[in-house]
Amino acid sequence: MAAFRRWKEQRLARADGSRKGSVDQAIAELVQLLNGHERFCTTSSCAGRLLLAQASVPGISGYEVQKQNCSWLMVSHQACTKEDVMTALQKATGDAVFKFEPFILHVQCQELQDAQFLHSVAIDSGFRNSGITVGRRGKIMMAVRSTHCLEVPLSHMGELMVTEEYVDFLVQIANRKMEENIKRIDRFFSCLQLALKTELSMHSSPLEMIQKTHPVYTQRRKRKPDKEPGICTSSDNKEESETEDDPETNLNGLFC
Amino acid sequence: MAAFRRWKEQRLARADGSRKGSVDQAIAELVQLLNGHERFCTTSSCAGRLLLAQASVPGISGYEVQKQNCSWLMVSHQACTKEDVMTALQKATGDAVFKFEPFILHVQCQELQDAQFLHSVAIDSGFRNSGITVGRRGKIMMAVRSTHCLEVPLSHMGELMVTEEYVDFLVQIANRKMEENIKRIDRFFSCLQLALKTELSMHSSPLEMIQKTHPVYTQRRKRKPDKEPGICTSSDNKEESETEDDPETNLNGLFC
Repeated sequence: MAAFRRWKEQRLARADGSRKGSVDQAIAELVQLLNGHERFCTTSSCAGRLLLAQASVPGISGYEVQKQNCSWLMVSHQACTKEDVMTALQKATGDAVFKFEPFILHVQCQELQDAQFLHSVAIDSGFRNSGITVGRRGKIMMAVRSTHCLEVPLSHMGELMVTEEYVDFLVQIANRKMEENIKRIDRFFSCLQLALKTELSMHSSPLEMIQKTHPVYTQRRKRKPDKEPGICTSSDNKEESETEDDPETNLNGLFC
Repeated sequence: MAAFRRWKEQRLARADGSRKGSVDQAIAELVQLLNGHERFCTTSSCAGRLLLAQASVPGISGYEVQKQNCSWLMVSHQACTKEDVMTALQKATGDAVFKFEPFILHVQCQELQDAQFLHSVAIDSGFRNSGITVGRRGKIMMAVRSTHCLEVPLSHMGELMVTEEYVDFLVQIANRKMEENIKRIDRFFSCLQLALKTELSMHSSPLEMIQKTHPVYTQRRKRKPDKEPGICTSSDNKEESETEDDPETNLNGLFC
């Protein structure tokens, strides 16, 4: 426990190593909530984004645009317009791909039960590709992941392969996905808050409650959880949810 | 252990509940290898596929084509042709989306260390979105997942939004992704075989080796692993790999 605490202090003191250099506004509160609890430490995150990427290494197949060898002609963490994309496409000299990438979050957890707790919240909120990693030396990570995405090749060797009308059509779809993505993040945040409060009130003596709370955690009186539409349902009584993906399959077979 | 064995027998005796009704040829050996070891039981799988899907519920936004409300105009577990897609598109009456979905495999594991073992092999083979689920009642699942995909809206209310030339271009990209997918499956199979043999020879007395082997598992003499291109490297000395996704980010930041 002490080792985790020390590691967490060092980690949070480090400079942000991402290209952007800061946490996305849409998830800042969520990251803060998690880091305010001693058993969690976020290690990486992205609220979701729309981007136009191009392979930056000549000769590499442009459609295997991997992080390491691609340049971004455009990136947006909210809705974008057809004009944004068309302008960016003018800069394309190779194979450009339009992508929607949903919310992703990595959280290192103190113990396996902490990862299970978080995993359960993630699944309830719709992040069905979430999963736990337990490293050989005991490091426990929970990755919050979604299934929905878009990946659309748009140009080949700098030449646009679709019409402007198609780009407009694509942008509308992408913006809808971004909207759904934001709703899921909100749902995750609400579910997490609820689950943390429920857990605290179920398992703590008054003394433990005081010991466990951090300055960022505000003590509330016990109350019945609201069943609002879009808010996660408690999974206490649900059968353990098997991780489902698109495609889900059964037994040794294929969902084909 | 006995409970897991009983559950596994029942599970493997069940009829295949998938739409296709059988395991994909490309992964049949892999599934057999896993199920031949008492601590693993595959529960679902798909070798990967190219498909043209359409929302089947009128009024639902076609681009949220979820498993439950979509119909398949075309599906292929290997390379497809432009003609396959154009023919399928003629049947489209709504919003059709072309997708490449990579290999996916769910394996229930007897103990957490079994899931960790499999997870390590999956990561080494390039399946970087793989993760473990530990259910509330102790069920341990390992999901082997990849990041690469394609999701391309092609028609809107039955009207084709791209040219035939674009479809041809898209099909070439998709076929390359399918090819890479098959290579990763082969890599996973080889890595798994190697890891199982290495583990067995490291930890077993001759008597234990006999007890652990199943008829499907052929005993081989210890040999130095080949370092072939495309074959996974041993992760014994590697730093624990943090689950990486596209987009990967660092600390509390964004890879933006």
